[in-house]
Amino acid sequence: MPQPELLETFPNPYPGRDYEIFMTTPEFTSLCPIGGIETDADELALLKGGAPDFATINITYVPDKVCLELKTLKLYLWSFRNDGIFYERVVNRILDDLSERAAPRWMRVVGDFNVRGGIKSIITAEYGVRA
Amino acid sequence: MPQPELLETFPNPYPGRDYEIFMTTPEFTSLCPIGGIETDADELALLKGGAPDFATINITYVPDKVCLELKTLKLYLWSFRNDGIFYERVVNRILDDLSERAAPRWMRVVGDFNVRGGIKSIITAEYGVRA
Amino acid sequence: MPQPELLETFPNPYPGRDYEIFMTTPEFTSLCPIGGIETDADELALLKGGAPDFATINITYVPDKVCLELKTLKLYLWSFRNDGIFYERVVNRILDDLSERAAPRWMRVVGDFNVRGGIKSIITAEYGVRA
Amino acid sequence: MPQPELLETFPNPYPGRDYEIFMTTPEFTSLCPIGGIETDADELALLKGGAPDFATINITYVPDKVCLELKTLKLYLWSFRNDGIFYERVVNRILDDLSERAAPRWMRVVGDFNVRGGIKSIITAEYGVRA
Amino acid sequence: MPQPELLETFPNPYPGRDYEIFMTTPEFTSLCPIGGIETDADELALLKGGAPDFATINITYVPDKVCLELKTLKLYLWSFRNDGIFYERVVNRILDDLSERAAPRWMRVVGDFNVRGGIKSIITAEYGVRA
Amino acid sequence: MPQPELLETFPNPYPGRDYEIFMTTPEFTSLCPIGGIETDADELALLKGGAPDFATINITYVPDKVCLELKTLKLYLWSFRNDGIFYERVVNRILDDLSERAAPRWMRVVGDFNVRGGIKSIITAEYGVRA
Amino acid sequence: MPQPELLETFPNPYPGRDYEIFMTTPEFTSLCPIGGIETDADELALLKGGAPDFATINITYVPDKVCLELKTLKLYLWSFRNDGIFYERVVNRILDDLSERAAPRWMRVVGDFNVRGGIKSIITAEYGVRA
Amino acid sequence: MPQPELLETFPNPYPGRDYEIFMTTPEFTSLCPIGGIETDADELALLKGGAPDFATINITYVPDKVCLELKTLKLYLWSFRNDGIFYERVVNRILDDLSERAAPRWMRVVGDFNVRGGIKSIITAEYGVRA
Amino acid sequence: MPQPELLETFPNPYPGRDYEIFMTTPEFTSLCPIGGIETDADELALLKGGAPDFATINITYVPDKVCLELKTLKLYLWSFRNDGIFYERVVNRILDDLSERAAPRWMRVVGDFNVRGGIKSIITAEYGVRA
Amino acid sequence: MPQPELLETFPNPYPGRDYEIFMTTPEFTSLCPIGGIETDADELALLKGGAPDFATINITYVPDKVCLELKTLKLYLWSFRNDGIFYERVVNRILDDLSERAAPRWMRVVGDFNVRGGIKSIITAEYGVRA
Repeated sequence: MPQPELLETFPNPYPGRDYEIFMTTPEFTSLCPIGGIETDADELALLKGGAPDFATINITYVPDKVCLELKTLKLYLWSFRNDGIFYERVVNRILDDLSERAAPRWMRVVGDFNVRGGIKSIITAEYGVRA
Repeated sequence: MPQPELLETFPNPYPGRDYEIFMTTPEFTSLCPIGGIETDADELALLKGGAPDFATINITYVPDKVCLELKTLKLYLWSFRNDGIFYERVVNRILDDLSERAAPRWMRVVGDFNVRGGIKSIITAEYGVRA
Repeated sequence: MPQPELLETFPNPYPGRDYEIFMTTPEFTSLCPIGGIETDADELALLKGGAPDFATINITYVPDKVCLELKTLKLYLWSFRNDGIFYERVVNRILDDLSERAAPRWMRVVGDFNVRGGIKSIITAEYGVRA
Repeated sequence: MPQPELLETFPNPYPGRDYEIFMTTPEFTSLCPIGGIETDADELALLKGGAPDFATINITYVPDKVCLELKTLKLYLWSFRNDGIFYERVVNRILDDLSERAAPRWMRVVGDFNVRGGIKSIITAEYGVRA
Repeated sequence: MPQPELLETFPNPYPGRDYEIFMTTPEFTSLCPIGGIETDADELALLKGGAPDFATINITYVPDKVCLELKTLKLYLWSFRNDGIFYERVVNRILDDLSERAAPRWMRVVGDFNVRGGIKSIITAEYGVRA
Repeated sequence: MPQPELLETFPNPYPGRDYEIFMTTPEFTSLCPIGGIETDADELALLKGGAPDFATINITYVPDKVCLELKTLKLYLWSFRNDGIFYERVVNRILDDLSERAAPRWMRVVGDFNVRGGIKSIITAEYGVRA
Repeated sequence: MPQPELLETFPNPYPGRDYEIFMTTPEFTSLCPIGGIETDADELALLKGGAPDFATINITYVPDKVCLELKTLKLYLWSFRNDGIFYERVVNRILDDLSERAAPRWMRVVGDFNVRGGIKSIITAEYGVRA
Repeated sequence: MPQPELLETFPNPYPGRDYEIFMTTPEFTSLCPIGGIETDADELALLKGGAPDFATINITYVPDKVCLELKTLKLYLWSFRNDGIFYERVVNRILDDLSERAAPRWMRVVGDFNVRGGIKSIITAEYGVRA
Repeated sequence: MPQPELLETFPNPYPGRDYEIFMTTPEFTSLCPIGGIETDADELALLKGGAPDFATINITYVPDKVCLELKTLKLYLWSFRNDGIFYERVVNRILDDLSERAAPRWMRVVGDFNVRGGIKSIITAEYGVRA
Repeated sequence: MPQPELLETFPNPYPGRDYEIFMTTPEFTSLCPIGGIETDADELALLKGGAPDFATINITYVPDKVCLELKTLKLYLWSFRNDGIFYERVVNRILDDLSERAAPRWMRVVGDFNVRGGIKSIITAEYGVRA
């Protein structure tokens, strides 16, 4: 299960200025809740678990009072590893968790998922309005 | 014949938020209804069928009540395989079928077709107005 | 001499929708009317003809009542092959010929010419106003 | 079914010299004989056919008495379109058919297949010994 | 724990010819047995597990009597997901498991691991001698 | 410690025109004040200093009365080399120092930092409003 | 010394239309008036001349009554070769010379200079207002 | 018709050393003698000429007594412009003409032809043996 | 000063097999012992230290009894940070230190240094003979 | 005139080992002795000098007793700036000058010249035999 309680923040050192922080990691992985577009039940029985999904996660935000601490952000993203969750939920859930913890002036989360069934998917969600 | 009845949807897990879903596949193929710019009648007689076209199809949309299910979207795109159809129809037809089934807040379909006669063609059509 | 009379059209299958068609070919060639920036008179006397120019031609348009037929567009572009014509004329002439024949809602023609005298030239011209 | 009888040849215009011909097409498609690594029986029942495979095919050879005619080579490759056949067979079958028809001094066929189940496959087979 | 018992094979359809099969997947992940070069004990206590590693795995072989079945190869590679194992062991272990199961004429396994501590690592191991 | 006193300027030779100057260097390095996301205390004790960070710094500005002199800008950027400082401070500090010294009509500073903990960070801050 | 008197023009063949001409050359070189950021006095004494600068020059304009002739533009750009001149002057001087000679509806000149002292510089200046 | 009589040479300034000269041009064009894989008789009747082919020509050689003069090599390659000639002949003919004129120690000619019928062709021929 | 005493090793888990380990980091920095090709004495007096050099370091080796531990390799490479040392010494010194510590069957070190004075340098040195 | 007397060397710090030094600069320029393939006499009269050539120069060598000093190598390459000299002479002359000064165990010089008359030229010459 995603563990938003892992997330830590530190005071924004330049709160008087609107500036942008972009972070990206190609190392996101979770499981598909129902086996996935490419995996049938026989396979899953052999493996005793869901089929893995892989994505690059991009996070952009304008900090307000606090900034997201990089080390615990890494731990938070790792916490999806053995969680069965759909693409649309992954991106919106990360946006909800990070924006609740950091209360940014604006935030965007993009999940760029690996090809499944010959189709690549990219989901983009935003919080607040870009100044 | 394209089979829009194959398309399935699932409830949008975050209907309260305008967010964007992008899907792309390089594996679209159909047939040309009249032999095609590079193929004459003698060739087609040998093969007993139309000349194949190849394209990458890009789909972007903002979901409303439902999202397009990826597995049946794949089957729907496969259903053009042995259908004779012009480029302009391919793109507008996919837009019509997907927007009818998913009733999105906005949708764009792009068909990026392989070179024929030394000329590459890209067709772009939209449904609704981007917020 | 360019032969616009070669151009054929077919009825736009989706006239109720503003959609965009992009076509590109790297195989355009014509001759320079005065030998060209890199060629002197002695050379041309040897060859009994003008110096060749090479370009990629990009055409984008929003069709109205008709679409440009790809096969005859190819023949039309071939018809510049042995014509002596300046870059600026090539691009504006193609725009004039295609927009007269297809009467599109909007059209843009870009000619991306190969390096001559160490300088690359790209000419862009438009017809109508993009909606 | 692959139709090697479509293949035509023409006399090698320079038989006195060992030279190399390389041809490549990104437009090869066939079907998987058993649904494929990413497709289960329920899907196939909906579609009434096998799951499509896509590949780029590279052919390199040193001609002896004859060269492969490009137009009929294209038709031959199209003839796999609705044939159920494994990757390993595709590449070895093309090598067998082309080398039987052209009797080259040496030939190599490479099939570079699209990702399936997150895994990309490339198969390479040769006929004769490169001088 | 890696599960080599998942691996299945099928008879090589062209055993009379030495030909090469290459497979690559960017979706390999395992855990580091001791937290990893970038992770300390406090972090791991929070997460209750090892730090994840990510790699692209490339496999090349010349089949003898059997070929590796792609679907179960995928399941086998997934089985490292929650296993704590060093880079050097990952690559040599995959080579041992695959070569034991398929008894190829020759095989090479390459593990291309993501940056850790600012350093990227690629491990390459071979079985048998390339003809 | 960053040494803004190193920065020199010269009179803008075309003050009557709004024009843009962009400068970029891939050779910025500083130290992390607390060991960094990838380094623990034991490592730092061995090295007797902080863990190094690396970044590409991009600076864009519209000069007013003076331009930044390139040679002393280089020296100023070198002066962060052995300074312990967070990413967010690096970018905002450079913006403060350069804009104070050059009083430009507008300025943007982007710090594109190397991957740490599998995550890449890019910080962007601006001074004034782009005309 | 730059020689704007070399520049020639020819009548715009399509003055009734706003269209854009873009020209780019990677072959611009001049000298630094004071040795340059990377060169000291001892070196210059050895060489009896200034240190060379290299740049790519991009020119974009909308012609009015005349177009710039390519062959003499090349000669004009060559005329900076042994001239000692700062980056900011190069770009603004070219803009002044070309816009005075061609009186375009709008013009932009970009000088993209090679790395000096580990820093790359790009200067952009415009004449008139883009319609 | 190709005009090898245009080719001129100049004395090799360093005949005592085996060194290599490589030349490449993306601006080769000729006509197809029989309409070509993508063009039928009706089209050719409209155009009153063969279908154009385009190629990049690469020439590598080790000069012996003379070097090929660049300006007349350009004119020679232009002389194929309105000649109907197959791919295999183009490459072997250029090799014959250039090696006869320059009598090099070794020479290779590569013709990299644009896609026709979805297939790209590259022909490679050599003269002499590489030391 | 480089600190080879930081380097640690661990037992090679597969000593019975010749396999290859490649490691690369873009984060190497040291100082130039005499100011460097681009820096004069006045600049160095301002900064109170040498001019920085930057390089990517590639290390390839076949382990024998031990493997190099990644975490301490990182610390060892950091230890050059404030050391004045020429390019040729950097590469040969790293090769000496690593090969002494790990006694590999074969090793190669490549230093790919950033542009200085418009010139890029790459130094390659090897230990032992590749099997 | 090229000034080989500018070249300086320093003692090879590791003469007991065969290692390789590669240097490359994109900033080489000289003049064409006879106006050049793209320039006629009228143009040259206007400019009072030859037409400029541009090249990237790559130098690779195995040092013996001495290494080439980078700063004076730069000055030596600058000394071709206003010299009229053919491509073939440039490369062989640099090889002669550098190998005479440094007496390396082996050396290769490559001159990669910009497109002239639509043709790119690359000249490669070697000194000694690669061990």
